[in-house]
Amino acid sequence: RVLASQRGFHGLLSLVLDSCGMWLVIILTGLGTGVAGAWLDILVRWLGDLKEGRCTYGFFYNQVTCCSGLDPGEVCNQWQTWSEHFNIKLVFAQSILQSFIYITLGITFAGSAAVLVQTYAPYAFHTGIPEIKAILSGYVLDAFLSPWTLLIKALGLALAVASGLSLGKEGPLVHVSCCMAFLFSKMFKQVYGNEARKRRLLAAAAVAGVSVAFGSPLGGVLFGLEELDTFSSGTDVMWRGFVTSVIAAMALQYVDPFGTSKLVLFQVQISEVTTVWRAFELIPWLFLAILGGVLGSLMIKLNAAAAVYRRSSILHQWPVFEVVGFSALTAAVSYLVVFLRAQSSELVANLFLECDASRGDYHGLCNPTATWANVFLLILTAATKLALTAWTFGMMIPAGIFLPTIAIGACLGRAVGLITQGLHHAYPKAWMFSSCPPEPTVPCVSPGFYAVIGASAMLGGVTRMTVSLVVILFELTGALSHVLPIMISVMVSKWVGDYFGKEGIYSIWIAMREYPWLPPNEFRDRGETAMNIMKPAADLVVLREDAHGCTLQDIDQVVRTYRFHGFPVLFGDELVGYVTRDRLKTTLAPLLAEDATSGAQRKCTFAARPTESNAAVIDLSPLLEESVLHLRKEMPLELVVSMVQKLNLRHVLVSERGKLAGIITKTDIVRLVTADFPYTAALSERQW
Amino acid sequence: RVLASQRGFHGLLSLVLDSCGMWLVIILTGLGTGVAGAWLDILVRWLGDLKEGRCTYGFFYNQVTCCSGLDPGEVCNQWQTWSEHFNIKLVFAQSILQSFIYITLGITFAGSAAVLVQTYAPYAFHTGIPEIKAILSGYVLDAFLSPWTLLIKALGLALAVASGLSLGKEGPLVHVSCCMAFLFSKMFKQVYGNEARKRRLLAAAAVAGVSVAFGSPLGGVLFGLEELDTFSSGTDVMWRGFVTSVIAAMALQYVDPFGTSKLVLFQVQISEVTTVWRAFELIPWLFLAILGGVLGSLMIKLNAAAAVYRRSSILHQWPVFEVVGFSALTAAVSYLVVFLRAQSSELVANLFLECDASRGDYHGLCNPTATWANVFLLILTAATKLALTAWTFGMMIPAGIFLPTIAIGACLGRAVGLITQGLHHAYPKAWMFSSCPPEPTVPCVSPGFYAVIGASAMLGGVTRMTVSLVVILFELTGALSHVLPIMISVMVSKWVGDYFGKEGIYSIWIAMREYPWLPPNEFRDRGETAMNIMKPAADLVVLREDAHGCTLQDIDQVVRTYRFHGFPVLFGDELVGYVTRDRLKTTLAPLLAEDATSGAQRKCTFAARPTESNAAVIDLSPLLEESVLHLRKEMPLELVVSMVQKLNLRHVLVSERGKLAGIITKTDIVRLVTADFPYTAALSERQW
Repeated sequence: RVLASQRGFHGLLSLVLDSCGMWLVIILTGLGTGVAGAWLDILVRWLGDLKEGRCTYGFFYNQVTCCSGLDPGEVCNQWQTWSEHFNIKLVFAQSILQSFIYITLGITFAGSAAVLVQTYAPYAFHTGIPEIKAILSGYVLDAFLSPWTLLIKALGLALAVASGLSLGKEGPLVHVSCCMAFLFSKMFKQVYGNEARKRRLLAAAAVAGVSVAFGSPLGGVLFGLEELDTFSSGTDVMWRGFVTSVIAAMALQYVDPFGTSKLVLFQVQISEVTTVWRAFELIPWLFLAILGGVLGSLMIKLNAAAAVYRRSSILHQWPVFEVVGFSALTAAVSYLVVFLRAQSSELVANLFLECDASRGDYHGLCNPTATWANVFLLILTAATKLALTAWTFGMMIPAGIFLPTIAIGACLGRAVGLITQGLHHAYPKAWMFSSCPPEPTVPCVSPGFYAVIGASAMLGGVTRMTVSLVVILFELTGALSHVLPIMISVMVSKWVGDYFGKEGIYSIWIAMREYPWLPPNEFRDRGETAMNIMKPAADLVVLREDAHGCTLQDIDQVVRTYRFHGFPVLFGDELVGYVTRDRLKTTLAPLLAEDATSGAQRKCTFAARPTESNAAVIDLSPLLEESVLHLRKEMPLELVVSMVQKLNLRHVLVSERGKLAGIITKTDIVRLVTADFPYTAALSERQW
Repeated sequence: RVLASQRGFHGLLSLVLDSCGMWLVIILTGLGTGVAGAWLDILVRWLGDLKEGRCTYGFFYNQVTCCSGLDPGEVCNQWQTWSEHFNIKLVFAQSILQSFIYITLGITFAGSAAVLVQTYAPYAFHTGIPEIKAILSGYVLDAFLSPWTLLIKALGLALAVASGLSLGKEGPLVHVSCCMAFLFSKMFKQVYGNEARKRRLLAAAAVAGVSVAFGSPLGGVLFGLEELDTFSSGTDVMWRGFVTSVIAAMALQYVDPFGTSKLVLFQVQISEVTTVWRAFELIPWLFLAILGGVLGSLMIKLNAAAAVYRRSSILHQWPVFEVVGFSALTAAVSYLVVFLRAQSSELVANLFLECDASRGDYHGLCNPTATWANVFLLILTAATKLALTAWTFGMMIPAGIFLPTIAIGACLGRAVGLITQGLHHAYPKAWMFSSCPPEPTVPCVSPGFYAVIGASAMLGGVTRMTVSLVVILFELTGALSHVLPIMISVMVSKWVGDYFGKEGIYSIWIAMREYPWLPPNEFRDRGETAMNIMKPAADLVVLREDAHGCTLQDIDQVVRTYRFHGFPVLFGDELVGYVTRDRLKTTLAPLLAEDATSGAQRKCTFAARPTESNAAVIDLSPLLEESVLHLRKEMPLELVVSMVQKLNLRHVLVSERGKLAGIITKTDIVRLVTADFPYTAALSERQW
């Protein structure tokens, strides 16, 4: 009785698990991503601060935690720089020691990240978003989502970010989140077994990743919609992504890694001055938007060129040395320029802030006498960061491109803001500034907001996203009253960027690595039809049966000889359907083994006619793929492309009045659509 | 020479116009919608204030404009109520006169709106969003977008809103915007001629409508994405919608109808108290979310039942009298309850605001001694508004459902907020409130934000949207720090609502009016295939030709006899293609006229074989539709539905080994998918 009731309970449990499997995985993924993101933040902070010093009463405290609980005016003695720790008095020796430890630890972190990635999980390198886009559109690459990749990516990411290299944690967190969803999904047969369900789950997980990376639950959903093309799978996916995103953000807020109990990362101060913007400011903002479009395109070009060069040069053999060398270079350069030395997130947070006498001045940024020096320094920082990032994004370490891009844009924006402010101070009576308050002491231009505009323009130029960028940016900054200028700058920078090439950086990388991914853009043919792109029937290997059916041996022969994904099946000349090699193999093996001698001679048929239904003939028609489309060869190419895009088809058969004319695979369509991308297939790793 | 250069210039101009046509229409639509929205606001304000009094120095000033330019303390003498104007001293007579004018004008406004709609543009009634959804998914209904509809909808909308009926201007503004785009598109041949392009343009226009209605450029884009299913047309549409939305919002901000130079309609005050929310508040918020889901579903049910009742009762014959009678009822009831008397937008704005001693108290809402009276009043208002709205939405006047829904939700939210606040004041030491500041004088609960939560929950229940609601709500209120609670409440209310029926109010109306629109939801078959739903070939009218071809007379006969949209073409038994009746008609007419006597006997062929190419046989094969799909009859129904959904097909031919097996039209799929909706086709107006 106990057993029976247990079975009953188990049965009930497994029923519940079956029906809620997807939701459970989603909730777990959301929680996991939120917690992982929070702990990564804490780890990065600690590692980053370790480069500068240590906490006297506990090695594992970062600077902020170490100094917490002090009154505003009090000096923090608990946190010691390394020179204080080793009790070095000489100023020269101090600075040597500090820079030595800073650079050495930076190199060590970056080097260990590279060793980890190289040794244990090569798929953990880079941002991961191109691969996720490809996977979401149907590419099967389970190694990319393995638990090892998860572990190494998370650990490597923390090390890489702390090393001071010019990279962000945003894209990799999306990858981490997807790995986590994949891991959890293995607990539930019905999610794991089904490729389409798995993809939907991964889409929701990716949303959670962005949600946590930026503390932007809405922006995450929109990122999923816009960049990951989860459009095509319908509103269910959005709804699930929405839930995952909320849960992840709640988990993040619960852990509260920054101790601010706020999701907003870079709070922009909303004072009466800054909520109003004036029409003349559109001129510098448009300039920033155009600059963002141009520099964004430049960054894409440089990055692609660097990746291609790396592949063809000797560096390809020595990825770890490349990382070590480049991190040494980065650390050395960064140590010289004050704005480069800090972590990017700290820099951005300060660039977004308005000057305020009540708060400390960040490295003299608010010093009114040093405007031009600051402008020079900011432009230098932006230029250096652009060059560093273009090389870093693609090395053998986890690396995101969002934060460096924001930092570059924020530097430029702040510089333009400072220039505008300087002009206003110099010529307060100019007609341009007539809408400013008459008293010159009342601030009119707020350079902090120019930094936000610069960041959005730069992001627009690099990623070519629109709506999601705007949402992420104003969830990041809270600058709701300025949504219109942010939208305008994203819009213009995308326009300008599109002039230099329509594709964002992720699409370029997908094309370079030749993943089977179709850009969602509209394709226009020039009168071509399906016929122009299909592999003609004459070149295809087919399974042909005649009125007598075919023998198992015939089929076995074809399956053994050719490694194609599947074969069209003909009856005489007539097209019957399509059957995959995998399915044939698993069905044939037992049939052949059953009767080793005569088995191979047994008749079988795909075109099961009711009249021929005798027991001797094996009916193979259930093996035919039900969902393979047959198109006519006169179908316009435009329509074929749009069908493959929207229905996510692997292959379509082309027929002419019931006879096989040819076959079109997704690969053909991808090649067709990405033909004019720069560097297509330059980093391709394998045939697919 | 002058002529030639003029021609050159004209040529150039028309070339430019041709290539930029779409963008020009988009820009014009954006500007037009922004300006129209702003002027509608001004008109509504003036008409609304006219019910209460007039400006002494100018009849066309509304109360705010009339009293502008005064110092804060000064009393406004320029604005006179009607009893002041007619110099009536008796208090009793005053209130009689005021209520008489209030109710009479309300009835007059509503009545004239109904007369206008009834007489000139019946399509201008209701919200318009269901029709726009149907049009965007391929339904051709040009009368709905005519200039007359535009004019009547705009004018009628202003009258209807000012009449005090329980309706909003949001949905109708989307309709106005689409009419405008349609009007502008007529100037550009290449946009107007092409149905697909027209649909894309309308999608962008709809986005602009929402953008202006809520002052929410981002929310507009998301509304387009989520509710209007512009997903399927790819990222280009989103991008265009984004641009239109920005332009419309800029135009709106430029006209600045409220004189605040802000887009945010209902600014929520962000003080230090309100930016922090506490975990215990999730309990009342969850309660609100559940309430929103339940009441939202109730509202949908009531509204559908009212619409069906109206159709079957005598009211159907007398729509204007219905409007007049119901507006009298509404005015009478509203005059009694103080919160109902004000315009909904004013009520919502005040419900969203926190109590603040420095600002006036809105009808005693902040009176701490009248908490329970206010709670009662708010719940009464919500209940009345719910009943009124359920009937109003569907009468013969332009009417949106967004604002009334927000108002109902805000009332309930504020009531729950007041209750929570009351509990906190009564039991400050309860464990629930342990996270509140210890001093009882410091406010802990902010009822204004509860109103926002209530509004989002109610909206979630009625419309079943997710992301776009959240964005619209926090663009409306600026409550960025509270994005997580808003998301949670929308999420829960949708969950609860979905339990009572999956469809939002717009989908229900589409199904009731039986428009050919497919919900984007996933459809799951139970093993059915295309065969189960197709009209079998035996029941179809086909054009059949044999080895001798067919004669023009045969075809002419078929075209004259049957009114179907088109006919499958067979060669013997073999399926050749599909040809539309329109195309056949326009081609046949000149051929038959050419040679009246023998013309009808001329041979023609669709299956143009190269061997038969003699001049006597007319080749009709170019008439065949290139893009009609041929599916196999074994295709799973699931896949057929998803194909029709995603590729927006009108009909697919079902074949079996090259022979025609049947045909599936969009209508069949719509019937299949909407079969289990309540009240399907209850308001259907025509066969399609």
